[in-house]
Amino acid sequence: VAKKPKLLSDLFHDTLKDVYFAENKILKTLPKMAKAAQSKDLKAAFVKHEKETRGQVKRLQQVFRILGKPARAKTCDAILGITGEGAEIMKDYKGMPALDAGLLAAAQAVEHYEMSRYGTLRAWAGELGMPDAVALLEATLMEEKATDAALTTLAKSVVNVEAEHAL
Amino acid sequence: VAKKPKLLSDLFHDTLKDVYFAENKILKTLPKMAKAAQSKDLKAAFVKHEKETRGQVKRLQQVFRILGKPARAKTCDAILGITGEGAEIMKDYKGMPALDAGLLAAAQAVEHYEMSRYGTLRAWAGELGMPDAVALLEATLMEEKATDAALTTLAKSVVNVEAEHAL
Repeated sequence: VAKKPKLLSDLFHDTLKDVYFAENKILKTLPKMAKAAQSKDLKAAFVKHEKETRGQVKRLQQVFRILGKPARAKTCDAILGITGEGAEIMKDYKGMPALDAGLLAAAQAVEHYEMSRYGTLRAWAGELGMPDAVALLEATLMEEKATDAALTTLAKSVVNVEAEHAL
Repeated sequence: VAKKPKLLSDLFHDTLKDVYFAENKILKTLPKMAKAAQSKDLKAAFVKHEKETRGQVKRLQQVFRILGKPARAKTCDAILGITGEGAEIMKDYKGMPALDAGLLAAAQAVEHYEMSRYGTLRAWAGELGMPDAVALLEATLMEEKATDAALTTLAKSVVNVEAEHAL
């Protein structure tokens, strides 16, 4: 039996399910990172991003609706690997001066994965002629970029705090 | 027994081992992606990046030397997850019109992970007062960014080719 050809629309749908899984995983991970963080500012950044992530999950549900498909998740090994490394940092650096720097790096790895996925999905939605989906994916992409920039700024102050402690 | 405090220098060393593992894994993955790619330009892009990656592995070895530590890899679950998704695309989209779009997306996820890691390592090398390491990490970060931009350009032409086939 000849297989049905898999087109860009199939790839878009598959990748949407992958990102839906990823966002839901991130939603479970952020409170743990907020709890683990030593710096008040870093805790606040994780709490803020958790709230944003809830909105991003809703946007994905809207994109599923545009596609006329149920919002379903498909296991995303990439986010499991990336958040697994974050969990390792929380364990290995618990109570250690470099914990927050490690949490920040783990969070930025997550943000970069998401930026890559949303950039791809946005481009595909454009090719597939779905302007409403483009707008939704673009909105989230901009939020992820802003979060990444905020984490970069925070990383500088966190590292400086460690340097001061070491004096 | 009180644990030795883990400082930014420990985190830098741990993350360097993680990226060293990732680059070596990518080096094994790129020839498979080049073989799988349907477009000649995409094949060429993967072959070119394989060559670049060899240089990036050497730069990491130089950073280990600056640290006075042996170049050792530490299993990086993130890259295993990310490349695992690429392998899934190769399997599920083999011979399908959307294969190249999927390979490109997988490669960009890898690039984004690396950009995040090299951005972090470069910042930490600066904080730790290692200007030679900063320069090495910066050189690789610029290469990864250029590769990602080239893949974005290629993604547009690959998707357009599929659209033409579908006419």
